[in-house]
Amino acid sequence: MAVVLEVDSVDDPRIDDFRDLKAADRRPDRPGGKGLVIAEGTVVVRRMLDSPFRPHALLGVDKRWQDLAPELAAVEVPFYRASAEVMAEVVGFHLNRGVLAVAHRPPERDFDEVVADATTVAVLEGVNDHENLGSMFRNAAGLGVDAILFGDRCADPLYRRSVRVSMGHALRVPFARVPDWPGGLGLLRRRGFQVVALTPDPMAPTLATALTGDRVALLLGAEGPGLTEEAMTAADVGARIPMSAGTDSLNVATAAAMAFYERVRAS
Amino acid sequence: MAVVLEVDSVDDPRIDDFRDLKAADRRPDRPGGKGLVIAEGTVVVRRMLDSPFRPHALLGVDKRWQDLAPELAAVEVPFYRASAEVMAEVVGFHLNRGVLAVAHRPPERDFDEVVADATTVAVLEGVNDHENLGSMFRNAAGLGVDAILFGDRCADPLYRRSVRVSMGHALRVPFARVPDWPGGLGLLRRRGFQVVALTPDPMAPTLATALTGDRVALLLGAEGPGLTEEAMTAADVGARIPMSAGTDSLNVATAAAMAFYERVRAS
Repeated sequence: MAVVLEVDSVDDPRIDDFRDLKAADRRPDRPGGKGLVIAEGTVVVRRMLDSPFRPHALLGVDKRWQDLAPELAAVEVPFYRASAEVMAEVVGFHLNRGVLAVAHRPPERDFDEVVADATTVAVLEGVNDHENLGSMFRNAAGLGVDAILFGDRCADPLYRRSVRVSMGHALRVPFARVPDWPGGLGLLRRRGFQVVALTPDPMAPTLATALTGDRVALLLGAEGPGLTEEAMTAADVGARIPMSAGTDSLNVATAAAMAFYERVRAS
Repeated sequence: MAVVLEVDSVDDPRIDDFRDLKAADRRPDRPGGKGLVIAEGTVVVRRMLDSPFRPHALLGVDKRWQDLAPELAAVEVPFYRASAEVMAEVVGFHLNRGVLAVAHRPPERDFDEVVADATTVAVLEGVNDHENLGSMFRNAAGLGVDAILFGDRCADPLYRRSVRVSMGHALRVPFARVPDWPGGLGLLRRRGFQVVALTPDPMAPTLATALTGDRVALLLGAEGPGLTEEAMTAADVGARIPMSAGTDSLNVATAAAMAFYERVRAS
């Protein structure tokens, strides 16, 4: 069961993993830094406790210790209890969610293992915005997508902001890097996936008619630039969302959600 | 054609409408304050210029004056040109989009006029988050929703943050207040709208089967609390998005987008 340890000083070295979360070159939750994974707020901390990511420490105010007591009863982990003022000074900003948990970053998962039993996967290229990536994981979890695969130039799904916007689902929806980009899309095709590229092209078939495979890989590019020519060419088919003329494309996570929804709509 | 007027001093009274945009009790773009409408960044300013909202002034750096020259050639409006430093001090934060436009808030539009020719409308209750509201307008514009109607306790669609997140579509998608809540839903029914309440209820029919009307009003509550019992009862039918067990509901703007998509999916 979790134990409470009091923290009175902002210099306490036991809470170094939570220090300077917003100072760009010292952030502990960057792959180039300590590579830690940080969960923020009770909802996300609960989801971390119920994920393969095992926190090795928590930092929070007394109220959050009370809120999390039922879940923490089953876990061996120190809960560093501090005032809101001490927390703010340690992390570098006022954290109104009042609790953080930190875990080590596990080794990346293997592509083959992640896609083995999947029937719907999202494959991302150039999705380099942490919030969009977080929303993508939240939508994937809600709409039954089995895995998220990363092509070139994507943001880090385990960065604090991605994890928070995902409501913690970045810790639960399996993800892996596609070996070789975009050539690796052939690996999906050989496993029986229909590779469908979302496109604004008005001549492309709609999502409703294009998604015919038992296994589908939905290929998504960043808002604005979209997919590269190379990725587009590597797909089996393009598919469009029926959009009104004269509008921007939808946010990439919202566009993805339409495609995810199309896969579950009749269930 | 727009004229450029140089601003060298942060105290210049000609730019008072852009002052202190983040100081809560003095913000000029609140209904209780000056009730102005502020567009931020070239994309949104362009959309304001192409909307019923006619800006009476712009404030921006020289680069943005150059970017907007083609659109501004057709408009009689002063462009107050300032350095990024002067702008930052006037608005109260560093504005990396570099340009603002300000318009007066027009009288609210009439419910009857807004719904007259609509076939799909969204009706919101308790959607009190400016960013969710902005996303809702962006999704409505992209997916062909004709109007957004406000029941009780919604945020202001013309607040700067709503307008920005909507990509300016809050200035273009018609909206109106429902007279009397939730009783006013009867007005929609009498005009032939099927009133469909989005619900997480697993016993409700799916969106795919529930949306049968030629005219549909999609009733949406806030993330978390959802619709009130009263609003739910006033609907003709509930409809659910097929969701995975054990996840949170989707973000309200994303959930709305699924329903909007369902209305256009075969088009």
